Amino acid sequence: MIDGNTKLIAHIGYPTHSFKAPLIYNPYFEEAGINAAVVPMGCHAEDYPSFLKLVFKLSNIHGALITMPHKIVTVGLLDEVSKSVAVAGACNAVRLAQDGRLMGDMFDGEGFVRGVLRRGRAIKGKSAIMVGAGGVGSAIAASMAQAGIAELAINDAHPPMMEELARRLRLHYPELQVTTEATDPAGYDIVVNATPLGMRDDDPLPFDVQRISPSAFVGEVVMKQKITPFLAQVRARGCEFQIGLDMLFEQIPAYLEFFGFPPTTSDHLRELAHTG
Amino acid sequence: MIDGNTKLIAHIGYPTHSFKAPLIYNPYFEEAGINAAVVPMGCHAEDYPSFLKLVFKLSNIHGALITMPHKIVTVGLLDEVSKSVAVAGACNAVRLAQDGRLMGDMFDGEGFVRGVLRRGRAIKGKSAIMVGAGGVGSAIAASMAQAGIAELAINDAHPPMMEELARRLRLHYPELQVTTEATDPAGYDIVVNATPLGMRDDDPLPFDVQRISPSAFVGEVVMKQKITPFLAQVRARGCEFQIGLDMLFEQIPAYLEFFGFPPTTSDHLRELAHTG
Repeated sequence: MIDGNTKLIAHIGYPTHSFKAPLIYNPYFEEAGINAAVVPMGCHAEDYPSFLKLVFKLSNIHGALITMPHKIVTVGLLDEVSKSVAVAGACNAVRLAQDGRLMGDMFDGEGFVRGVLRRGRAIKGKSAIMVGAGGVGSAIAASMAQAGIAELAINDAHPPMMEELARRLRLHYPELQVTTEATDPAGYDIVVNATPLGMRDDDPLPFDVQRISPSAFVGEVVMKQKITPFLAQVRARGCEFQIGLDMLFEQIPAYLEFFGFPPTTSDHLRELAHTG
Repeated sequence: MIDGNTKLIAHIGYPTHSFKAPLIYNPYFEEAGINAAVVPMGCHAEDYPSFLKLVFKLSNIHGALITMPHKIVTVGLLDEVSKSVAVAGACNAVRLAQDGRLMGDMFDGEGFVRGVLRRGRAIKGKSAIMVGAGGVGSAIAASMAQAGIAELAINDAHPPMMEELARRLRLHYPELQVTTEATDPAGYDIVVNATPLGMRDDDPLPFDVQRISPSAFVGEVVMKQKITPFLAQVRARGCEFQIGLDMLFEQIPAYLEFFGFPPTTSDHLRELAHTG
């Protein structure tokens, strides 16, 4: 129940329709007796830098969850960023430090990695191919690199973004084998769609599913529906996979800690969530 | 339940601790199946003009409720204001018109007048004394003038504010008898505290209660507690009175109409509200 003492977590992105975080955090806050609320704020790119500064001047702001299309630009708007932000080149969580400085971190990739590991699948020493080198793709790449992946092939419809991610990966993980412009998923242990393909009904699939090994683990970031057209084919092919929502749930305990709230588990959050 | 399609009504003021609107509107929205939420945003005066503009660029903004200390400055920040805003010199409700223009209205005074009339008390032809010529006081004066009050005595610790209200009243209601610097409530039919006196425990009372006629009707705008120290003495004196919260409930149907929501009654809102 929102009242005058409610702490806001601004959930900033555009468009807002597919936002899931309010449906996960708010039931947890209510159950845990925490007077806070995640509130969606649909902010256009041209307004975002000014809006972010002003929203953090509100007396009842507690933090911000940043989503598309603002994750990359956020990196340059803060006073301090974590190592994962620097590697990912994107930021999706912002809080105000005691001294008034804006601090950013990035947990998209952490959610993906935790989800893979929870299923008993390995990342260390394995190979992965990922399409999409934007905010979330870069974060997943950074987290997989941190988790010890041996080979990472990336692609993006926007080559400079792909090259920039490759540059940051090589800089911070010189022993990681990084390949760019890879499109064939054959032979890779992990296959990840980190593009928005699947948001629209007429989107093409991010990979040729018939080239994915049935033993591969497949990750999806699109959350418009649980089983995207891509995942439907992946399932038919016999692959183990992780839906976008899983990645979201897995990362939330990390955010709660970042924002200074009591710890909980992703399973507990799932039980409470109103995500249908 | 807030989700990505929730329309926001930004409740902007500072400080936010005593905000009641979220506790009244949100239970009604939930019961009526309206996907909207009143969200408190504690905005400092220096940030307010920029913040107001940006908050109305959010894709899911539906409107704003403006409260202290921003009601007066709001008048100059909008594209169009109602007659009641012009007379009151203050604005507490803002919405976006279809053409993108920001439109303001003012319902503080309407709530007060509706509350008086609901009790079967008259305003037309009567006399009133009011201390406090800020946003809410000016609104009450404007609404009482519109309801036909014959004599209105006003005072304020800040004389230019009082003189400015008197000027606007005389301009728009030339037949109304307006007195300034009045402090003695003796003989008035209606006595109103429209100052924040009563917010703090050590505040002086706004009037010498022993000079108020027991037959007078007394209004209070402070909502920190139902019975303020002033109202406790007024009650002991035998006067009929209206608490700050009454004024709030009475005005809410007018806001709902302004924001384009289905109509309801103040009694129905009271039944649903979580204001204790």
